[in-house]
Amino acid sequence: MFDETDQLSVNALRALSIDMIERAGSGHPGLPLDAAPMAYVLYSRHLRVDPQAPDWVNRDRFVLSAGHGSALLYSMLHLSGFPTRMADLKQFRQLHSMTPGHPEHGLVAGVDATTGPLGQGLGMAVGMAMAETHLAAQYNTPEQKVIDHFTYVICGDGDLMEGISHETASLAGNLKLNKLIVLYDSNDVSLDGATDRTFSDDAQQRFAGYGWDCQKVSDGNNLAAIDAAITAAKLTDAPSMIEIKTTIGYGAPKQGTHLVHGAPLGQTDLAATKQSLGWQAAPFTVPAAVKQRFAERVQERGQAAHRQWQALLTTYQQAQPKLAAQLHHALAQELPVDWQSDLPKYQIGDSEAGRITSQKMIQALAAKVPSLWGGAADLASSNKTDIAASGSFSATARQERNLNFGVREFAEAAAMNGIALHGGSHVFGGTFFVFSDYMRGAIRLAALQKLPVTYIFTHDSLAVGEDGPTHEPVEQLMSLRAMPGISVIRPADPNEAVAAWRLAMTTNDRPSVLVLTRQDLAVLKGSLNHPDGVSRGGYVISPQQRKQAEGILLASGSEVALAIAAQQRLRKFGHDVAVVSMPCFDRFMQQPAAYREKVLPRNIRRRVSIELGATLGWERFIGLDGLSLGIDTFGASGPAAEVLAEYGFTSDAVVSAYQKLW
Amino acid sequence: MFDETDQLSVNALRALSIDMIERAGSGHPGLPLDAAPMAYVLYSRHLRVDPQAPDWVNRDRFVLSAGHGSALLYSMLHLSGFPTRMADLKQFRQLHSMTPGHPEHGLVAGVDATTGPLGQGLGMAVGMAMAETHLAAQYNTPEQKVIDHFTYVICGDGDLMEGISHETASLAGNLKLNKLIVLYDSNDVSLDGATDRTFSDDAQQRFAGYGWDCQKVSDGNNLAAIDAAITAAKLTDAPSMIEIKTTIGYGAPKQGTHLVHGAPLGQTDLAATKQSLGWQAAPFTVPAAVKQRFAERVQERGQAAHRQWQALLTTYQQAQPKLAAQLHHALAQELPVDWQSDLPKYQIGDSEAGRITSQKMIQALAAKVPSLWGGAADLASSNKTDIAASGSFSATARQERNLNFGVREFAEAAAMNGIALHGGSHVFGGTFFVFSDYMRGAIRLAALQKLPVTYIFTHDSLAVGEDGPTHEPVEQLMSLRAMPGISVIRPADPNEAVAAWRLAMTTNDRPSVLVLTRQDLAVLKGSLNHPDGVSRGGYVISPQQRKQAEGILLASGSEVALAIAAQQRLRKFGHDVAVVSMPCFDRFMQQPAAYREKVLPRNIRRRVSIELGATLGWERFIGLDGLSLGIDTFGASGPAAEVLAEYGFTSDAVVSAYQKLW
Repeated sequence: MFDETDQLSVNALRALSIDMIERAGSGHPGLPLDAAPMAYVLYSRHLRVDPQAPDWVNRDRFVLSAGHGSALLYSMLHLSGFPTRMADLKQFRQLHSMTPGHPEHGLVAGVDATTGPLGQGLGMAVGMAMAETHLAAQYNTPEQKVIDHFTYVICGDGDLMEGISHETASLAGNLKLNKLIVLYDSNDVSLDGATDRTFSDDAQQRFAGYGWDCQKVSDGNNLAAIDAAITAAKLTDAPSMIEIKTTIGYGAPKQGTHLVHGAPLGQTDLAATKQSLGWQAAPFTVPAAVKQRFAERVQERGQAAHRQWQALLTTYQQAQPKLAAQLHHALAQELPVDWQSDLPKYQIGDSEAGRITSQKMIQALAAKVPSLWGGAADLASSNKTDIAASGSFSATARQERNLNFGVREFAEAAAMNGIALHGGSHVFGGTFFVFSDYMRGAIRLAALQKLPVTYIFTHDSLAVGEDGPTHEPVEQLMSLRAMPGISVIRPADPNEAVAAWRLAMTTNDRPSVLVLTRQDLAVLKGSLNHPDGVSRGGYVISPQQRKQAEGILLASGSEVALAIAAQQRLRKFGHDVAVVSMPCFDRFMQQPAAYREKVLPRNIRRRVSIELGATLGWERFIGLDGLSLGIDTFGASGPAAEVLAEYGFTSDAVVSAYQKLW
Repeated sequence: MFDETDQLSVNALRALSIDMIERAGSGHPGLPLDAAPMAYVLYSRHLRVDPQAPDWVNRDRFVLSAGHGSALLYSMLHLSGFPTRMADLKQFRQLHSMTPGHPEHGLVAGVDATTGPLGQGLGMAVGMAMAETHLAAQYNTPEQKVIDHFTYVICGDGDLMEGISHETASLAGNLKLNKLIVLYDSNDVSLDGATDRTFSDDAQQRFAGYGWDCQKVSDGNNLAAIDAAITAAKLTDAPSMIEIKTTIGYGAPKQGTHLVHGAPLGQTDLAATKQSLGWQAAPFTVPAAVKQRFAERVQERGQAAHRQWQALLTTYQQAQPKLAAQLHHALAQELPVDWQSDLPKYQIGDSEAGRITSQKMIQALAAKVPSLWGGAADLASSNKTDIAASGSFSATARQERNLNFGVREFAEAAAMNGIALHGGSHVFGGTFFVFSDYMRGAIRLAALQKLPVTYIFTHDSLAVGEDGPTHEPVEQLMSLRAMPGISVIRPADPNEAVAAWRLAMTTNDRPSVLVLTRQDLAVLKGSLNHPDGVSRGGYVISPQQRKQAEGILLASGSEVALAIAAQQRLRKFGHDVAVVSMPCFDRFMQQPAAYREKVLPRNIRRRVSIELGATLGWERFIGLDGLSLGIDTFGASGPAAEVLAEYGFTSDAVVSAYQKLW
């Protein structure tokens, strides 16, 4: 089944990879040399992709979780006929090249996920497999399986050492994601040396404990054995892990050691490696037979599959016009025209916790937007994330829309990324705000990949109360605001909470972080009068009485009401101040200068910010002459009202802070 | 071996716990009701603690990883004779009480670790067990085992779902931490419902895969079976996991369901629970027989062990005066008088990467400070954290001082916390700065517990270059600065790097985060002239020429040199500015106002900050009239110099930014 040309093709991947790394003067030859056979078998015999249509929705997904092996992936994409050109390979790791140091989704066609931070690729693949099975349940008919593909991963020892590998593998096992197949490049070496210095897991036993199907291929150069294992893995009713024993840096003089992990081989060793592989072609060239083999085995096979699927889709569109249209909208991230028709409305006198408004929004949205699904990390009952009209997504109920991530925040965020990357979903996920720390690595990859996921972070301040400092967020708010490419939105009342959710639903180029209270928030008059307040990031929610304000109180979330109360009291002392609600720093900074000047006139320097979080960062708006009321220590355990008073969050304290500016 | 009084004692723990929760109006009765038997067996038959000397260094450690079960721990501490009084139990979860919502180390005597964020307790226990075995190897003689104790954990399903449970258990298995014993309260229920909805791991199989010794106790109320399992676990040569099957909320009408997990039972169910347990004493009272049993079984047994150890210590002090003195210093966190005698020194003309200066500091410190040890998360060769004169700490080399954490950043940080909590060490740990995100939850617990651990975060900016945006930190710097209770130090040159390490070594009340470059930094004249510059957080490293500066350039780390270069060029344009190096925001904010005014005179408003990181937060020093040069997007893959130029980090750009202020 495999011939000499196949072997030559494997070596072509190896040779191109080490040429790229050598030319770049940096990179990781270890994995490309050892994993080229498994990658080749996967692409040439199993993976269904159309290099001319890299975004084909029903393609098999492939995630190189060990992203440092990018040279292998780019070589593969090039030989397979993806847009990656030989000239791109020569620009490996150069500025503005199409072949960056780690695979970047969105930049490089054929890269299904941005990887590099170890373990997260596996997590995203789990999300992709979840999305596949959910969409299949939503859209397939017995005759037309329009969503029907596998998700493949190549991961290394490092991926499996990371904690997220546990969370995601445990989740995948519970969900019986049988179309997820992980090739584990088991080379026993990581950056610092042999893995047994620190890592002696029996991976087979561990994954069996998760309910995975496990296989072992003892020789990573045995193409037929790898092929047989993948073939078998496709037939199981559990996710599959194929441990493939390899020699890191195979063929290189220093093969089998950490010295070939992460630096160019050097000209001498490069030549020796090629010699040992029997590779004779000039740098950055490949024999015609190899090109032809890739054309037939990857490109033509994939194109045929794509054509077949397009015919299926045509039949499906005729047989199921409504479902087909719905799928089209979902994949285009389009919302139904009536999606806003039943959103909750609030008037003066109403009062509701941010998490409850979010709960009502989720119900209203879920009724109109079939692509909306989500859940929480074992906190649905606290985060109020359940869709009441749906059941729990599980191994036996793929169509259900409530995701139970378990106590696995990082896996939740990584899986959300995978779901978003797959396409066809609006996905949300919740936990306590303080535990956003556990998922920060994945939030960052969401931002970097511009994924429109929505985080529901409730219990957003010291008002958590009795659970104490381990559960009371302080620095999380400013820390997330510092991250590029995300919108952090902390609504001040039910109307702002509705607006925040609306903004999240209509944002397609970045994650939205909704930071919501556990406790009730009264409707504020100013939020009713400024329906675009949240989308503008900041606005005058309660103006001064005269033409020009004497000072400005700025606040977000639950502290806006406090600012307005202080504004009233300050009037009695003759101070006429405006109150600015600032739910979203980044949106405000994107407003035209004239708008920002209107909200925060440059010449008004008496400014006080009020927020139950770290003060660092508020100086962007209060400057050197203002004053921040915030929390720059950890919280305390006690009833919420007592904790807030203890930390100086009373209108008295705001008044006295403002008076200090005189 | 167990009689009716023992059973009564178990129920006393249960009754006190649910009384506490009922009175507080919040809390988690599920775990105290189900885990009281295992906790009782542990405290009454195994745990060696002296309630009158809760900090006895050779006590067995106990970590309640499932910290939400705090009521059980406090009841236990009270009945065992620790300072926790009955009056304290009645103040459960109240402000300023000694019984906060989750166990807080430092506040409550007998609480060995602050827990609540799930999984981290297990991680800290692994660190404690590492410290125990390392100190034992350093200090014990065949005759006198002055350090010789067990570390026990009670954890729940939630702990074992968290990714960090994988990292730490895998590490503990590799290290064969045989004196670590984990009691797994396996009650099949978590906050949102039955765990099988999302969690179907075979924990035995999983932990066996890590090389742990595994046992199962099928009836969590069987005191003798639990006792036998713990007794057996103490004899194994691997870490032990005892899965104990329990019924959550045992005795309560809603036992076995998630409804008893996290809210008071209510008066009716409380009464029914006590009836079902046969408990007749009034609320917050216990029969005299119970008191006596705890006095004998915990207190007297522990005191006897403590007395015995003190006698041993006396012999040890006589036989090994030098070692004994060294141990005393290590436990007191005291440094040898000559600890600074061989630190590297740098002069104008020298140039060195931050990570290399750190590497030299580590060698110099390790030679003088026997309590110093540390390592990295599979990046020692990049982070330069190895102690050259030592080998790798392992199952067969307990005395060695290089810690190989594997690709397990979160476990690293949690284990560092455990090592610090244990006492007797100065511990450090490194990774790439961008992956500090993975350990944020544990950094926070270090800060909350005021633990003097030192993080070595190298590759601190976009100057990482070729590895690209997944490996280039941007927001990490400001995000960590926003965290209460830590010092984030980003040195500008080798002298500042030495000062940063010195500061970390002499700081006993908080973690220090050293943010270090991959690339060379030239020695700056101003750092030589200001030896206290780093400890003051910020200082004028290059003053203006006239009496008063026209403007100020502020920078940290590698950008200070850029600021000084720009200062020179600005002079040619007639602008006489000062350059302020700001290695540590929090130290600067702690300086007297007069010092801060001297460095940053209030009336000088033309200020430009320059830092390869998020700008949010720099406004604290530049105000509304200044300008920040920073990075508010993600980085890019390419050679470092090209990336920096692309992002506008040239002296031209600084000059032109300053000129915009006119």
